Amino acid sequence: MSDIVLEALGKLSISAQVISHEPVTDAASWAQALKTQDVPKFELTKTLILKPKTAKTAAVTPVVVIALESSETNATAIGKKLSLKDCRFANEDLLSTTFEATKDNVSPFSLSNVKDLSLVRLVLDAELNGTSLLAFHPNDAAKTIFITVDQLKSYFASIEKEFVEIDFKALAAAKPAAGEKPAAKAPKAKKEVAAAAASTEDTNQMGLGCKKEEDFPKWYQQVLTKSEMLEYYDVSGCYILRPLAYNVWKEITNFFDAEITEMGVEDTYFPMFVSNRVLQREKDHIEGFAPEVAWVTKAGNSDLEEPIAIRPTSETVMYPYFSKWIRSHRDLPFRINQWCSVVRWEFKNPQPFLRTREFLWQEGHTAHLTLKDADVEVKQILDLYEQVYNDLLALPVVKGVKSEKERFAGGYYTTTVEGFIPTTGRAIQGGTSHCLGQNFSKMFNITVEDPNAPANATDEAKKLHVWQNSWGLSTRTIGVMVMTHGDDKGLVMPPRVALIQTVIVPCGLTVKTTKEESDKIFDACKDVAARLKKSGLKSKADLRDNYTPGFKFNHWEIRGVPLRLELGPKDLQKNQVTCVRRDTGVKFTCSLDNLEAEIKQALDTIQSDMYKKAAKKMEESIVRVNKWEDFVPTLNQKKLLLVPWCDRMACEDDIKERSTRSANDEEEEDEKAPSMGAKSLCNPFNQPTEDPIVPGVTKCVACEHDAKHFMLFGRSY
Amino acid sequence: MSDIVLEALGKLSISAQVISHEPVTDAASWAQALKTQDVPKFELTKTLILKPKTAKTAAVTPVVVIALESSETNATAIGKKLSLKDCRFANEDLLSTTFEATKDNVSPFSLSNVKDLSLVRLVLDAELNGTSLLAFHPNDAAKTIFITVDQLKSYFASIEKEFVEIDFKALAAAKPAAGEKPAAKAPKAKKEVAAAAASTEDTNQMGLGCKKEEDFPKWYQQVLTKSEMLEYYDVSGCYILRPLAYNVWKEITNFFDAEITEMGVEDTYFPMFVSNRVLQREKDHIEGFAPEVAWVTKAGNSDLEEPIAIRPTSETVMYPYFSKWIRSHRDLPFRINQWCSVVRWEFKNPQPFLRTREFLWQEGHTAHLTLKDADVEVKQILDLYEQVYNDLLALPVVKGVKSEKERFAGGYYTTTVEGFIPTTGRAIQGGTSHCLGQNFSKMFNITVEDPNAPANATDEAKKLHVWQNSWGLSTRTIGVMVMTHGDDKGLVMPPRVALIQTVIVPCGLTVKTTKEESDKIFDACKDVAARLKKSGLKSKADLRDNYTPGFKFNHWEIRGVPLRLELGPKDLQKNQVTCVRRDTGVKFTCSLDNLEAEIKQALDTIQSDMYKKAAKKMEESIVRVNKWEDFVPTLNQKKLLLVPWCDRMACEDDIKERSTRSANDEEEEDEKAPSMGAKSLCNPFNQPTEDPIVPGVTKCVACEHDAKHFMLFGRSY
Repeated sequence: MSDIVLEALGKLSISAQVISHEPVTDAASWAQALKTQDVPKFELTKTLILKPKTAKTAAVTPVVVIALESSETNATAIGKKLSLKDCRFANEDLLSTTFEATKDNVSPFSLSNVKDLSLVRLVLDAELNGTSLLAFHPNDAAKTIFITVDQLKSYFASIEKEFVEIDFKALAAAKPAAGEKPAAKAPKAKKEVAAAAASTEDTNQMGLGCKKEEDFPKWYQQVLTKSEMLEYYDVSGCYILRPLAYNVWKEITNFFDAEITEMGVEDTYFPMFVSNRVLQREKDHIEGFAPEVAWVTKAGNSDLEEPIAIRPTSETVMYPYFSKWIRSHRDLPFRINQWCSVVRWEFKNPQPFLRTREFLWQEGHTAHLTLKDADVEVKQILDLYEQVYNDLLALPVVKGVKSEKERFAGGYYTTTVEGFIPTTGRAIQGGTSHCLGQNFSKMFNITVEDPNAPANATDEAKKLHVWQNSWGLSTRTIGVMVMTHGDDKGLVMPPRVALIQTVIVPCGLTVKTTKEESDKIFDACKDVAARLKKSGLKSKADLRDNYTPGFKFNHWEIRGVPLRLELGPKDLQKNQVTCVRRDTGVKFTCSLDNLEAEIKQALDTIQSDMYKKAAKKMEESIVRVNKWEDFVPTLNQKKLLLVPWCDRMACEDDIKERSTRSANDEEEEDEKAPSMGAKSLCNPFNQPTEDPIVPGVTKCVACEHDAKHFMLFGRSY
Repeated sequence: MSDIVLEALGKLSISAQVISHEPVTDAASWAQALKTQDVPKFELTKTLILKPKTAKTAAVTPVVVIALESSETNATAIGKKLSLKDCRFANEDLLSTTFEATKDNVSPFSLSNVKDLSLVRLVLDAELNGTSLLAFHPNDAAKTIFITVDQLKSYFASIEKEFVEIDFKALAAAKPAAGEKPAAKAPKAKKEVAAAAASTEDTNQMGLGCKKEEDFPKWYQQVLTKSEMLEYYDVSGCYILRPLAYNVWKEITNFFDAEITEMGVEDTYFPMFVSNRVLQREKDHIEGFAPEVAWVTKAGNSDLEEPIAIRPTSETVMYPYFSKWIRSHRDLPFRINQWCSVVRWEFKNPQPFLRTREFLWQEGHTAHLTLKDADVEVKQILDLYEQVYNDLLALPVVKGVKSEKERFAGGYYTTTVEGFIPTTGRAIQGGTSHCLGQNFSKMFNITVEDPNAPANATDEAKKLHVWQNSWGLSTRTIGVMVMTHGDDKGLVMPPRVALIQTVIVPCGLTVKTTKEESDKIFDACKDVAARLKKSGLKSKADLRDNYTPGFKFNHWEIRGVPLRLELGPKDLQKNQVTCVRRDTGVKFTCSLDNLEAEIKQALDTIQSDMYKKAAKKMEESIVRVNKWEDFVPTLNQKKLLLVPWCDRMACEDDIKERSTRSANDEEEEDEKAPSMGAKSLCNPFNQPTEDPIVPGVTKCVACEHDAKHFMLFGRSY
């Protein structure tokens, strides 16, 4: 909620209920969002900004109309009533410059943003007076505030703004075209409002309503909710993973768990609760997490003796027990993993999958006799993370080592797989495999007797602190997948992680089709689905009889089903199905005789093509830059930069600062990343071989020191 | 901690650190329990009660000795020093009657329980004076309090009890047998104490140290920790599931998830957090959970605007979204499931797996068009739960319907699989599948248009509230498995859920064995393990060279590995392995030629025999009782009762009350179930066909009403 609204209400001592929901863009989705919330009886409203015609050089004199959502509001009629000429709905420009608002979040409170209120006329729907509570956005499309009409009027009084009331019902009745249509009666049951609004908006709701390249944040939100992958939740920063999303996590789990089991890692489950004492034990480590720790202080009506934390990660939870369980070098390597959720109560803007207060992950924790053993495992795990991205999610990553500044607090070194979101040109840390060195083993006294110590060594000299690793991969993976592959039609799912890999839609049925013919087509669809399912492919026949094929195509496209099979009378005649790839839209036919093998082949091709396309994009987006002059301009072209670097923390800080300032000078940032500077992403394992660093000759891209290696820099999530 | 200690310390304004741990029974396990905790430097102590010989009719005059654990304390020597005759360690009887203590929890504070302190002599170890902090049990073996010797002495002053100090070091030195052995120096580093204690107790630690039939609660705790299945945790009521336990849950997950996926249920993940508003929405339902709800009120250092609950179950979390997602009868059946942990902050005695504050479970939530559809699913799920018990855990269950009193709050009817723990004669609710009826759908407005309504019906008449089910199975399953199959040697794992199904131990190697011969045996063991693993059996060769075969046998027996393969020179000669069944101890040989098939067959036999044995025991333990006179006596023989019943709640209350009172009259209860009455367990689907209920003739077992059906009653967890 914008501070200005808080301030305004605070001054008036108005304490109103405010609730959060997914950002809404129309009455239908608003009603829908409120439907799941427990609120008293209320009425939806609309705030409209009209612009009467004025001389080009004259100041604009907007009309603000506050009405029930259900009232008929006609710009021309209102203009006429106010004796204004050519009154039209204002464009986004006027909204943003005069009211600092968009059509989605504009509200009566937007008046507080207006510099010269005397230029504005304010009109109220007379129907507002009959209501109990009114729902407005508090200048924020993801929130709703409930106030009474009297509270609204006292707000206007507080900003000294007069208003006129208009009987829109009478106005509508007076309009010749309005005929007998009665205006909606207030108050109306909210369920009815929702249902009515939803039905009239159904067609709109089906598509995304925005383009990926034009409004990426809105596109992301729409693609997640409209594909039914994710649902916004009434606790901020928490989201519901619906089957489409959870299935991706299941596939990742199945793959990764089998691999680490083969390596000898065993699954465990540690409690989600941590006592304060244990949590605080490794000070450096906890420092990074402390501000985000959620605390349980009550059970039922009783206060707990001492607050108990919910794990933000499990190093300090597990390692006291490592010291108990690891008694001999023969217990090494000691390796456990757990699949669980962790809680980090971030106060920054939450974002589905990428930044959430609770998220699912796996965390592996291992102990080794030597650094060398630990090193080997760090890389093995990183390779598995790379496989999750490449082979399951069809996404490229760059493997490398984090800089000193970016490495895990309390660790020895951190390796990472870095992903890339082409649309924003930002990198994203995709998974990390840390070597913790002996820092934690010294803190928690995890020791064994060194089997390689000389026989005559003292007990103290024989004592060896184990070398530890920890590594984690989270549901963030799903966000990267959606952002990279999705398009203006919705999700595009890589076949390996798709809940439904092929959908079969009966086609070509017309009014002339006989019942017998149509039964035959439906049976054939069922048969194809059954055959594919039997061969291990996740398939579904969409046999709903009340939807057109076109509706079904949209339905499954938005959900990203990799391959659509169309089966009509002509197909059946030719003993074939028509196939349409979701990723490319390419159409081809497939003989029913060879169905299973060909469809399997097609899905493999889609998987591999999706990877290739994304990899090519990432490859093109990594640019070699040797001079500072090129740094920010290249960054601003949504690229990642591979630069010769001196590997000094001071230089990294400097790069961030200079790229932030320069960014502000040169261009507007996207709203989610205001004035964001470049961070180091990793020291890639694959260093360029062409035109390599010449020790003592090649300089750092940003300072006068010698370059030590190439480093990947970029804006990052 | 006993109230008396709190009170005593409170009066003295002593604020001491108290920590919780698993109940400990000796110095070694105590040291071990404290090793993982973050406490300052301290010394373990011991409190001993001696009983000098007195005339049989005279009052007992016990001697309380408070000493460092490391001090040598000889009852006779102390008696001599005090000029007491025949001074011996007191028996449990004296401990309990005079001090209200056991040998495991007795402490200086036990003096507060003594009625006539003048009869007691108090002796302090002079070595106590050199220490910083002393560890005592505060009359509770699962807690440790740390106080200084001065605080201890001020406690004695507060109860006006004088003491003498004895130099046990000098006393020991004076003893002829003590020789040159120096008494331990105080203070000693705790790590050393722990290590020393642990090493001297190693042999004891290997076995269970108690028998299942003699001390079942202790046996359970020992079998869980010593098998490394579970670890006690420093937040009370929470436990660490180690790989042996977690693997059972994984096997259950894999089986059950595949089955419900086939049924069309889809996995989701809802946030663990619930807003108060949503939680409170279904009042009847939440009433049962409210006292156990854990509340998050802080994040970092900030207080949350309003407390947020951690889900105790997800009905009210999910159903607001059901009302959003279910729009048409074509969306039915709507079925989702999630695997997650839930939190119920119980204040009763926690017990691993059976009653824990956080536990893992699956919860399925579904919606149907008709009650009939819902009914079918309720039974399908119950059958799957039965399969989990029978086929995976080798455990019998009785399926049936819960009584009105025992059914799920807010539900329509509850079905259950009831398990049975023979050792205690108590039943346990093993999993429940609820039909919720339309209660929640009416509360949350989950409706569809009835496709079967007459075309001319009003909108209101067409509105159909969906029929809902919910069903859950938890890690409680693992507890039932351990309690039923385990024996005095430790765990007995059913092969289907064993982390290791066969272990191969090289045998028959002596000092005379050549390196070449022993290499051959080791290689053969590796080869056998590899062959079995390749054929899909979870196998491991125990090739540790520093342990004897006997040690390894014990090691794997306590962990319940179903089949042990022994491979020695003679076996190799005969091209065979020797196999030993964990469940029966039966030995047999198996040709190496036919290894995979025979071992697989043997594991199947073990699985099936374990089930048969447990099923037979349960069958024998269900007794038909027709007269009230037989009710409590049969209950007291650790049986479950199948009785003709009138099915009235008042009668059920009455049975519970009368069986509780009677139980107290007739025999001592086991400590975990003081004066526990009988509950109804279920109305079994399989009603007896022999000697059935004759309507209007057969009377209820407990009242004068007509019996309606047979009901299973019993004591229950």
